Amino acid sequence: MTDSSINRVVLAYSGGLDTSVILKWLQQTYNCEVVTFTADLGQGEELEPARKKAEMAGVKPEHIFIDDLREEFVKDYVYPMMRANALYEGLYLLGTSIARPLIAKRQIEIARQVNADAVSHGATGKGNDQVRFELGYYALAPDIKVIAPWREWDLTSRTKLIEFAEAHQIPVSKDKRGEAPFSTDANLLHTSSEGKVLEDPWDEVPDYVYSRTVNPEDAPDTPEVITIDFERGDAVAVNGEGLSPASLLAKLNDLGRAHGIGRLDLVENRFVGMKSRGMYETPGGTILHLAHRGIEQITLDRGAAHLKDELMPRYAELLYNGFWFSPEREMLQAAIDHSQAKVTGTVRLKLYKGSVIVTGRKSPHSLYSEKVVTFEDDQGAYDQRDAAGFIKLNALRLRLLGRRDA
Amino acid sequence: MTDSSINRVVLAYSGGLDTSVILKWLQQTYNCEVVTFTADLGQGEELEPARKKAEMAGVKPEHIFIDDLREEFVKDYVYPMMRANALYEGLYLLGTSIARPLIAKRQIEIARQVNADAVSHGATGKGNDQVRFELGYYALAPDIKVIAPWREWDLTSRTKLIEFAEAHQIPVSKDKRGEAPFSTDANLLHTSSEGKVLEDPWDEVPDYVYSRTVNPEDAPDTPEVITIDFERGDAVAVNGEGLSPASLLAKLNDLGRAHGIGRLDLVENRFVGMKSRGMYETPGGTILHLAHRGIEQITLDRGAAHLKDELMPRYAELLYNGFWFSPEREMLQAAIDHSQAKVTGTVRLKLYKGSVIVTGRKSPHSLYSEKVVTFEDDQGAYDQRDAAGFIKLNALRLRLLGRRDA
Amino acid sequence: MTDSSINRVVLAYSGGLDTSVILKWLQQTYNCEVVTFTADLGQGEELEPARKKAEMAGVKPEHIFIDDLREEFVKDYVYPMMRANALYEGLYLLGTSIARPLIAKRQIEIARQVNADAVSHGATGKGNDQVRFELGYYALAPDIKVIAPWREWDLTSRTKLIEFAEAHQIPVSKDKRGEAPFSTDANLLHTSSEGKVLEDPWDEVPDYVYSRTVNPEDAPDTPEVITIDFERGDAVAVNGEGLSPASLLAKLNDLGRAHGIGRLDLVENRFVGMKSRGMYETPGGTILHLAHRGIEQITLDRGAAHLKDELMPRYAELLYNGFWFSPEREMLQAAIDHSQAKVTGTVRLKLYKGSVIVTGRKSPHSLYSEKVVTFEDDQGAYDQRDAAGFIKLNALRLRLLGRRDA
Amino acid sequence: MTDSSINRVVLAYSGGLDTSVILKWLQQTYNCEVVTFTADLGQGEELEPARKKAEMAGVKPEHIFIDDLREEFVKDYVYPMMRANALYEGLYLLGTSIARPLIAKRQIEIARQVNADAVSHGATGKGNDQVRFELGYYALAPDIKVIAPWREWDLTSRTKLIEFAEAHQIPVSKDKRGEAPFSTDANLLHTSSEGKVLEDPWDEVPDYVYSRTVNPEDAPDTPEVITIDFERGDAVAVNGEGLSPASLLAKLNDLGRAHGIGRLDLVENRFVGMKSRGMYETPGGTILHLAHRGIEQITLDRGAAHLKDELMPRYAELLYNGFWFSPEREMLQAAIDHSQAKVTGTVRLKLYKGSVIVTGRKSPHSLYSEKVVTFEDDQGAYDQRDAAGFIKLNALRLRLLGRRDA
Repeated sequence: MTDSSINRVVLAYSGGLDTSVILKWLQQTYNCEVVTFTADLGQGEELEPARKKAEMAGVKPEHIFIDDLREEFVKDYVYPMMRANALYEGLYLLGTSIARPLIAKRQIEIARQVNADAVSHGATGKGNDQVRFELGYYALAPDIKVIAPWREWDLTSRTKLIEFAEAHQIPVSKDKRGEAPFSTDANLLHTSSEGKVLEDPWDEVPDYVYSRTVNPEDAPDTPEVITIDFERGDAVAVNGEGLSPASLLAKLNDLGRAHGIGRLDLVENRFVGMKSRGMYETPGGTILHLAHRGIEQITLDRGAAHLKDELMPRYAELLYNGFWFSPEREMLQAAIDHSQAKVTGTVRLKLYKGSVIVTGRKSPHSLYSEKVVTFEDDQGAYDQRDAAGFIKLNALRLRLLGRRDA
Repeated sequence: MTDSSINRVVLAYSGGLDTSVILKWLQQTYNCEVVTFTADLGQGEELEPARKKAEMAGVKPEHIFIDDLREEFVKDYVYPMMRANALYEGLYLLGTSIARPLIAKRQIEIARQVNADAVSHGATGKGNDQVRFELGYYALAPDIKVIAPWREWDLTSRTKLIEFAEAHQIPVSKDKRGEAPFSTDANLLHTSSEGKVLEDPWDEVPDYVYSRTVNPEDAPDTPEVITIDFERGDAVAVNGEGLSPASLLAKLNDLGRAHGIGRLDLVENRFVGMKSRGMYETPGGTILHLAHRGIEQITLDRGAAHLKDELMPRYAELLYNGFWFSPEREMLQAAIDHSQAKVTGTVRLKLYKGSVIVTGRKSPHSLYSEKVVTFEDDQGAYDQRDAAGFIKLNALRLRLLGRRDA
Repeated sequence: MTDSSINRVVLAYSGGLDTSVILKWLQQTYNCEVVTFTADLGQGEELEPARKKAEMAGVKPEHIFIDDLREEFVKDYVYPMMRANALYEGLYLLGTSIARPLIAKRQIEIARQVNADAVSHGATGKGNDQVRFELGYYALAPDIKVIAPWREWDLTSRTKLIEFAEAHQIPVSKDKRGEAPFSTDANLLHTSSEGKVLEDPWDEVPDYVYSRTVNPEDAPDTPEVITIDFERGDAVAVNGEGLSPASLLAKLNDLGRAHGIGRLDLVENRFVGMKSRGMYETPGGTILHLAHRGIEQITLDRGAAHLKDELMPRYAELLYNGFWFSPEREMLQAAIDHSQAKVTGTVRLKLYKGSVIVTGRKSPHSLYSEKVVTFEDDQGAYDQRDAAGFIKLNALRLRLLGRRDA
Repeated sequence: MTDSSINRVVLAYSGGLDTSVILKWLQQTYNCEVVTFTADLGQGEELEPARKKAEMAGVKPEHIFIDDLREEFVKDYVYPMMRANALYEGLYLLGTSIARPLIAKRQIEIARQVNADAVSHGATGKGNDQVRFELGYYALAPDIKVIAPWREWDLTSRTKLIEFAEAHQIPVSKDKRGEAPFSTDANLLHTSSEGKVLEDPWDEVPDYVYSRTVNPEDAPDTPEVITIDFERGDAVAVNGEGLSPASLLAKLNDLGRAHGIGRLDLVENRFVGMKSRGMYETPGGTILHLAHRGIEQITLDRGAAHLKDELMPRYAELLYNGFWFSPEREMLQAAIDHSQAKVTGTVRLKLYKGSVIVTGRKSPHSLYSEKVVTFEDDQGAYDQRDAAGFIKLNALRLRLLGRRDA
């Protein structure tokens, strides 16, 4: 059912085997021009080889886009999410989810720039990423055409894929010939791994799967104490050194990696309806998440804090499911951002063999009042007798209930 | 404004200095009989000395109640809360909150048994515990009289309290003469510490404050791997050994203690309106919480799991604020418990130097389907083309929006 | 892509033109036996003609199922929903949504009984009903095959449908030859109308579309006062006369019809992503909804009532979207039902020219206390001074905020 | 326990008997200057008599404040609340609640202007208004002193109050001598009545209690059709005539009054813990509420609409409880307001004998697409086959559940 009207398609292109096959397959199947877009989101790979490969595949030089999006990624995606304290299913820091909307947005920008009528990606038909990409595409360009090769083609086994590659002069590195024991996704926030050796949720994740953190057992025997400064909800400095968002996250990643922080073995519920087991490494993000909670503890009012906690699971679900560009995510973000005006101050944390704990927090906007809370004489800051009335009226409905139901 | 009509009052009596002073003060001020109730909730203190002290203070032997409530505490309070994955303000396992309703309930039972017209407790007027005790009293016995000495008397400084004690032959141990550097509460689930040396939230918690866990740096250099078995949402065995709820929690406490697990330094929002800084040690509870999430990951449907996550902050807030005996807590519990019918299976965890991580989970009722999720050929278990329609209809409203707002 | 392995299919069969065409189409296309199931849900049509038509189409007598499900419908579906005070998008009483799960359930029961391997329905590919039917089928019989002719066949215009009917000796009544000006669905709870003349949401619904209620302008000039008795959240009597659920709803429908009650012109959001405009008539249900709120007002505690109000939109959305047979709907139902134990008593209502208002409510379990609330001397039932402390502590966090942000 | 340090107090002064007594009582008891503040919120009373009475009571001319706040009231309080579709306990339009924060805010402004150290109001110790006033005071001026005479004095019976008035040359009108059969509060949004003859929730509200609306039975026999135009969520015109917020609400009040619209007999749950029965008349507000829902139906995306519906009960509770000036109300408002950017268009409504119904809505920003939803051929706007995949993936988790639990 291929659409013969497609002339030009913008492909999210990593330069790896799969998207190289897709590139060629698109050219052949749709008889169309392919424009490649390769983003640096901090995945830690060189991108220039992608340019060469695209050129070799016949992509015009002016149709090869390679962008460093690291700062935009952290500033406009990771940070807003951190303000929300977002955790999917109580534990997952959403490292893959948060990268997809930015890629989709940039792909659509390029599609407009080069006058393309379609976009394409390399996500499979079983995962969440196809949804995240495509909801982004459709929200930003409602009439764009979307090509999802993994849902269309018949290259459904690795063998067929490699045959196709070889038949089309696509280089296949040695390690790709065999079956990879698991698949990964990486960006500045995290690395995720899933599939194959991870598919039995009872089996422990093998050591060789981890790539972003040292094993906590191999981490230093001495804890490391750091500080993070926040301004209006966003981290701005580590150990007193002001850093841009991407530099700051990279710095925390280094620290987290060294101390084995941020590993997570999770069975999660995909939006497409199945459970999957993944392993995540989010070294800097884990530190950031806890630090943000730490600074909120003294700068956020209870009403705001509890409302945020109640909204968070919904917010995280929206991100996970790919609804970044939706009115309801924006509404929640407006509420969350409104709460962050005074979330400014410093958090001290201790990193040690896989764990990170907050050991202190201070702020020029602290709501914590030693004078009120003290066990010592508070000189009238709080009248304990007020508590009697407070309790009596909170109890009134329970007493009326108790009398009725006695 | 003391109420001259009070004849007999049931006091939550620890045997310590404060409640001993209260005992005497009640007798004097209200000219009434005092009935003492001392509960073993696993706080790790001998209770028989409390009996002697009560006797010495003139309490009739038949008016001295000492109950071992450990099994009831874990089975009927801690376990239901664990089914909810309850965390207050994202982090706190509610160890103090969950103990108060049970004490209140037992006090009311004794009040009925001995025909008392009032109950009393030793919680101060600034804290949450007064609320938790009294909401429990009023819910269960709407017409009971409540005496909260700390809100009434003028023994507002430690010096005055000790003077009163000495004037009334109440033994004051040496270490009580000086100011304790912090105050604590303990039960089988946790130990909390607050006040004095902890009052500046920037200052690190001094080492000597910890009593339930070793410093992670002093914990064994070798991880320990354990398993926990669950049945219908409740832990029933550790390392294959079936244990009663209290024994099981005690066992996990031993494991957690040895590995330095469950320390939390928190600034929290009290129900009475102020922020306070506390330090919590919840060794076994921390393990249990993560293990429960682990078994839910494979046995709970997404719809149930996400609903639980959205309800949790509200549930935790109700417990923290003292509304255990409220219709809304019971409603939430009914929903939560309904979800646990198949939360049965085994979780494997690794304990190491302050951290606990899930490394595997299995269940006869697992919803995880390797056949569906696999990267390999799934033999028709999942049709990837379905995803296209799924995405298209999820995108439809976003596309209509996008067209309008273009 | 028809599945040649299907031997026997249970069709939700109304006996009307569309499902008669489907019956024949299924026989031809799948070369399979068709089993018809016709439910009386109070739609107000005779069902025996359906039997004849099925026989004429070659369905075996033992394969024709005609069931009166009215009592089950009201008792097990409408009433639980009424306990929740469910309104979709603030206004809609979910009359169509609530009928689908029961039909799906019965179809699956029959499929098991006759050893069928598939089920089929006549809902179109644009609406919600296809989702509601099929989610029900799949939840109850995960491996059943589902045939949705409207999404498969090429009889996509009325002309083609009628040609097919005539070619297969399916009687086409005169009024079906032309285009119906709108389409309807009816059951004991409501009648819905949509399409064609209703498609422009600015155009007023023409008078001839209404079938279940008189025009309020034609309703009696004198109000009618009625009472409804509730037991544990469910209506059990009207004007003192005990009635079964279905009889009671029928009685309220008669009353509502006469007074022009329960008309609703709505533009709603379908689960499949588009907006649609519908007109609903829910005469008895509208009365029941308001009466239930009335009895809850005096029998439900605030905590329970507010929690119900917060959960309601989610509950209504689940029903609308077809997730009746889902763990999360059941969890919410468990919470809601838990709250109804004392929702017993009598509500008085006034019906008049399209409006229904509660004018009184009483209950043996009333929580309303004249003694507490009275403007007169309450003899100590409530100490106004308690309010001072109550306010002071509720204000504390706001004052700390105000001081910081001054 | 009167505070001798108070020099000047700003009193919310209506000029009626009660606040006149309070004025005098404050002068005497606190030996302080009283500053009066009388607000025109559209309660429909002349305010100049309040000036005379204040002068007679010895208030300095420059200490008498009489402000017309009608436009501010509707624009900055009623309209934001209407954007939220706020209903307390499913039914109540919050007419009293929404007026209190504005009065409190203005009182605090005056207190600052005249250098007062205290504020005072005439709300009783059993109601919600004391809370609303005082939370407003404390949020805006954390260190202000609050005098609530009804909680302090001993003028607890009407007889004593009148004796005090007569002893202090406060004029007592004839109708005030006897017991009023109920008490009322009024502003441009509504009139509420409670107490005395309304205290038995089974007794029908007597006809003479209503003051703002005709009895529906006496309303015109012919319906009246009106239109309301909205811009960004706010009503801006009636029947095509552009009106300021207060003028518009007044216009709708006239229309509603004539047609007997907006009467509500309610038993509600007060924040202070008891149930109370009230009667509300909100003629224009009832029309506005439904009209706003009407325009949202075509201009708001489903995601935004459902999120709004889920947040609404919490928002309404915050307003009812007096937390207008709280971070969490502001956060919710930020989310709600974000959703209103395109809520622009026209709604047509029919008013008839107590009921108001939407009969049409149109908008330049409509999301309703006849092309997509039509029963006719949609020319590819929607592919019905997409629904199959949509349903299959929505069903996947239910099927996995069904297989497990079979």
